[in-house]
Amino acid sequence: MAIVKTRDEDRIRELMQDRVRQLLAKDLEDLVSVYATDVVSFDAVNMLQNSGWDQIRRRAKEWLASYDGPIEYKIEDLHVVAGQDVAFCRCLNHVAGALRDGRQVAMWLRTTVCFRKLEDEWTIVHEHTSVPFDANSGTALLDLNP
Amino acid sequence: MAIVKTRDEDRIRELMQDRVRQLLAKDLEDLVSVYATDVVSFDAVNMLQNSGWDQIRRRAKEWLASYDGPIEYKIEDLHVVAGQDVAFCRCLNHVAGALRDGRQVAMWLRTTVCFRKLEDEWTIVHEHTSVPFDANSGTALLDLNP
Repeated sequence: MAIVKTRDEDRIRELMQDRVRQLLAKDLEDLVSVYATDVVSFDAVNMLQNSGWDQIRRRAKEWLASYDGPIEYKIEDLHVVAGQDVAFCRCLNHVAGALRDGRQVAMWLRTTVCFRKLEDEWTIVHEHTSVPFDANSGTALLDLNP
Repeated sequence: MAIVKTRDEDRIRELMQDRVRQLLAKDLEDLVSVYATDVVSFDAVNMLQNSGWDQIRRRAKEWLASYDGPIEYKIEDLHVVAGQDVAFCRCLNHVAGALRDGRQVAMWLRTTVCFRKLEDEWTIVHEHTSVPFDANSGTALLDLNP
């Protein structure tokens, strides 16, 4: 049991590191290949939720295209809990780069990713990424550091 | 296997409905009793993360005390995935009420809750609650509806 668990945790860590590489490479198709068809995403911006593979692919495509030049992306403090066929992980992500509209992004986000093992591979069925907001001003806190 | 899975999903649904009742009753001790000692929370406001039972209890206490009179709270669109000893759920939550500082709250939040089964009971090891922000203005979107 312990060996299986470790192998699954390792596989999820590998998938999360793959995602960093896919973002750095702006590789949309690889990035979305790990989502389930009925994935639901709670995204950091604009929408309360995004449902289904098509909508999430569209959203990821827009997001990658909004950067002018390279996206800097790293994950830290990755914590994985993997059962036999259900798993989740959380981490802090730093994203930085120049947007096409001229703005500079450099912020820490929190991400929770939830997986099911389908056909012997871990698949993302739910993802939640956000920043907190200031309870007094109602402004998103984009300058927090871990 | 199917029966076990259903029982676990049902238990998590029950725990989530318990949490609604605990919030409505402002029952701090019951509310925090289901957290693991090493729980990490990505909260909707102010902090990038809150770590450990004590910090999360303190934060919950402050939050409950910030309301003058009753808190209205409901969860919708609850989706549970439960394995043998790892589970997660997501839902949309509506919170409303009057704060002691005079402001009125009425907003939808997204919540992801991650569980481990410890000593035969489901325990929250991670929680992520947020609202999205407007990518152009940087303002938290407190007036979205599902």
